[in-house]
Amino acid sequence: MDTPDIRPGEVTGPTPDRADAAITFIGRLRTPFARREDCPRRGDAETGPVCTVEVDPPLRPALQGLAPGMRLELLYWMHHARRDLLVQVPRRDPEPRGTFALRAPNRPNPIATSIVMVTAVTAEGLLVRGLDCLDGTPLVDIKPDFRRGGEPTSAA
Amino acid sequence: MDTPDIRPGEVTGPTPDRADAAITFIGRLRTPFARREDCPRRGDAETGPVCTVEVDPPLRPALQGLAPGMRLELLYWMHHARRDLLVQVPRRDPEPRGTFALRAPNRPNPIATSIVMVTAVTAEGLLVRGLDCLDGTPLVDIKPDFRRGGEPTSAA
Repeated sequence: MDTPDIRPGEVTGPTPDRADAAITFIGRLRTPFARREDCPRRGDAETGPVCTVEVDPPLRPALQGLAPGMRLELLYWMHHARRDLLVQVPRRDPEPRGTFALRAPNRPNPIATSIVMVTAVTAEGLLVRGLDCLDGTPLVDIKPDFRRGGEPTSAA
Repeated sequence: MDTPDIRPGEVTGPTPDRADAAITFIGRLRTPFARREDCPRRGDAETGPVCTVEVDPPLRPALQGLAPGMRLELLYWMHHARRDLLVQVPRRDPEPRGTFALRAPNRPNPIATSIVMVTAVTAEGLLVRGLDCLDGTPLVDIKPDFRRGGEPTSAA
């Protein structure tokens, strides 16, 4: 685990230690980003590289109805994050800000959300554009993105 | 737990039983919706009722930088959901669809995301518009919503 060090001005609290709920990973994200420094600052669902969403075999029936052209919201677990940072000093904008005013990976429950565009539905899951996470990141959920208009349809 | 029954055409799979990651609830959502049938179909960040986001005291320093007028993405745990449904038949549109093509509460990891508008920052947390969940729903995360333009600022 390459847990990052804290920077001057950052504030830590207690590390969360209650397991109030348990997450079961539903698959894994395959991206071209092997190291943290390779990851783009924010994924682009229009122009980003095509990445693979591997869904565990028992859950693949839950993909029924997804199709190319749909915008989805993916939730995933940032497995290298630290969970005790309350105030952070972003590298690009070094003013201290509360963790809940940032989308940084380090947070009490390190779950990220990304909007992606489906380019293909495959036997193993999906191909999508818009991810910016490390290769091998564990997947937590897949949902349609309703913020960009309307219900999902079965066609693209 | 009022776990809902399944409807004709719905498909179940194994109930997730691996604890790959542990969530620690960071607070609780207070809404006017005491029963499932009171919840609106989708929250409205402009016109919905003002609800309370209670943040646990040790985590309140992480709210630094949030202010009225900001749009946030809240993640919360749908504690009454069932986790084994792979194909569902929505009541309002009774065509079977995969769980990952729906935003329904029932899903392998029952985490919801909602976009809310901050109306006030209080000693205990936030007041927001846009929630549609049950009163008492456990809170998992608070993030700025970058999809509606730009970085968060410290002013509204």
